[in-house]
Amino acid sequence: MSAFKIVAISGSLRKKSFNTASLHAAKELAPEGVTVEIAEIGDLPLYNEDLRVEGSYPAPVQRLLKHLHEADAMLIACPEYNYGLTAALKNALDWCSRPPSRPFAYKAVGIFGVSGGAAGTARAQAHLRAVLVGLDAYALNQPQVMIGAGHTKFDADGKFAEEAGRDFMRQHLVGLVKLAKQLKS
Amino acid sequence: MSAFKIVAISGSLRKKSFNTASLHAAKELAPEGVTVEIAEIGDLPLYNEDLRVEGSYPAPVQRLLKHLHEADAMLIACPEYNYGLTAALKNALDWCSRPPSRPFAYKAVGIFGVSGGAAGTARAQAHLRAVLVGLDAYALNQPQVMIGAGHTKFDADGKFAEEAGRDFMRQHLVGLVKLAKQLKS
Amino acid sequence: MSAFKIVAISGSLRKKSFNTASLHAAKELAPEGVTVEIAEIGDLPLYNEDLRVEGSYPAPVQRLLKHLHEADAMLIACPEYNYGLTAALKNALDWCSRPPSRPFAYKAVGIFGVSGGAAGTARAQAHLRAVLVGLDAYALNQPQVMIGAGHTKFDADGKFAEEAGRDFMRQHLVGLVKLAKQLKS
Amino acid sequence: MSAFKIVAISGSLRKKSFNTASLHAAKELAPEGVTVEIAEIGDLPLYNEDLRVEGSYPAPVQRLLKHLHEADAMLIACPEYNYGLTAALKNALDWCSRPPSRPFAYKAVGIFGVSGGAAGTARAQAHLRAVLVGLDAYALNQPQVMIGAGHTKFDADGKFAEEAGRDFMRQHLVGLVKLAKQLKS
Repeated sequence: MSAFKIVAISGSLRKKSFNTASLHAAKELAPEGVTVEIAEIGDLPLYNEDLRVEGSYPAPVQRLLKHLHEADAMLIACPEYNYGLTAALKNALDWCSRPPSRPFAYKAVGIFGVSGGAAGTARAQAHLRAVLVGLDAYALNQPQVMIGAGHTKFDADGKFAEEAGRDFMRQHLVGLVKLAKQLKS
Repeated sequence: MSAFKIVAISGSLRKKSFNTASLHAAKELAPEGVTVEIAEIGDLPLYNEDLRVEGSYPAPVQRLLKHLHEADAMLIACPEYNYGLTAALKNALDWCSRPPSRPFAYKAVGIFGVSGGAAGTARAQAHLRAVLVGLDAYALNQPQVMIGAGHTKFDADGKFAEEAGRDFMRQHLVGLVKLAKQLKS
Repeated sequence: MSAFKIVAISGSLRKKSFNTASLHAAKELAPEGVTVEIAEIGDLPLYNEDLRVEGSYPAPVQRLLKHLHEADAMLIACPEYNYGLTAALKNALDWCSRPPSRPFAYKAVGIFGVSGGAAGTARAQAHLRAVLVGLDAYALNQPQVMIGAGHTKFDADGKFAEEAGRDFMRQHLVGLVKLAKQLKS
Repeated sequence: MSAFKIVAISGSLRKKSFNTASLHAAKELAPEGVTVEIAEIGDLPLYNEDLRVEGSYPAPVQRLLKHLHEADAMLIACPEYNYGLTAALKNALDWCSRPPSRPFAYKAVGIFGVSGGAAGTARAQAHLRAVLVGLDAYALNQPQVMIGAGHTKFDADGKFAEEAGRDFMRQHLVGLVKLAKQLKS
């Protein structure tokens, strides 16, 4: 039996991003039989309808679409920039939204976020949920993972410093797999 | 007495964009003594905190920041992609959000949008307003300009086909100049 | 085999509400084996945590909770007042949100809305989706039913004047039943 | 010279509400020449368009409208219930939104919120800002006052336990008065 495959996207392009670090943590915290792979989005061109209409998708977009179509579920690390999504994340989602290539359609998506401030990306996650409706994806409701004061929650190796963080992520992944399987049933 | 200068941004990179067309229309509909200039955002790199921290801003960002700092008010044409902002627009706003260079701070911003569907970018404009709070900018409330069924509202030259469209835009610009002057008083 | 039971709530208390009319239409458009019942919310007191903490729920709240707990899925007609939810609707949802009585938890919810203007409750539905996340309910993504210019879409008997309206509602109900069954699987 | 009058509304009907407590604190922290009065909203009937259309406003609504029309600016304490506004608050705002009686139109409004969790009403405040656009009111952008872990921030008398809380409120009130005067200029 093949593994349940989660393809993950980090909304941050920063090398030392806590959001990206969380995705690496997710790899290790995934339930048995579940793999987490991280897709690259930093090299996509800014979405421009003309680029899509003129012919085939740009190569990095084709790569991303292929990767996401293989996924049983997605996981998105959602930073908050100016109370909204990062451009890098919205850009990737828009490239994945047009027929006939809509890898998110009727799929389950886990979302979480790490922020420096206290609100823990609550507003950006709200925007992300709205955008995922447009992609016909179902974002897991509970448990929500909003990690404020991010610099205090990770150790020097970029791993969760506390069991609480690991626990939330584990529960989130378990919930995500459950929802994904239900949506395929 | 120098002109009141509005610097405009279109969230669409598409050549035949109705949103961009609306900005060109705004140039002609501006009240006397008011100029509208359109800033380019299509050549900005995807926002990456590392690019900013490593030293000075990339050249296209410097150009945009300079342009916006000269503005008495801003005008944003806001398409709706998947119920949210375009990546190109969010990208430009994020590049303009970090101290010490925050050209939107305590400035008045006009926003409008053209969509193909009926809702006329209502959801994207809601996200844009939230993001502008993060930039400490004040978006004009009324009159709101949400243009649905865009392909029926413009003529072959990309100009408003109906007086109603021109009127909304005129009133929006008058309201924008008033708000901008009040915020400077 | 017992019927699949949808309990519906109208966010409008107005007697001639198009939103409430749509729910009556839903009764007739429901797939075979599916019933739609409308729950009353107009007599609930304004939510006040003190009323809940002091003892048992007020009687109208108990009635509503009992009704909703019997539901296999919910359907909400969501008007838009000042770009947000009606107080009557938010009030009902808040009364249904506190442990141990959370009838919406992990249930499927259909949402639609009728407005006078063109945007067809797009913004209110976005707020409703955010609130439903708080209740751990899953709102159906597609097809979205946003009915603008409501006064032109219903006949004198409060029924959909056009087949298009009936079709959207039928498809929405089919999608809702499918999602509800998946979430129970 | 008459005082600058702020009329405040608490979105919580709970007697020991931290949000209401914050408004009482605001009275004492107001700059010289500025008064803060709290308006009652707990006795308003649920908004029903039929009640308004049938004739005059219900008495409690008339009282609220009169109070708000006297205000130079408003201040709203915004709890977060299920990621959205309280029904009590939305209800009050909807009663104040219909022509010809629109006391919020082109007025400055301060908003803040206290929550038990960490996110400090970030999501509810976002919804409130969207609703205020519908009322044509301008919500102060900065400083934002989002108070998480509310039970640790107030003393037994319901006053801010820390200077930080008082400072934020003072700055918010100063900013509010400035914005209100600009919008009247």
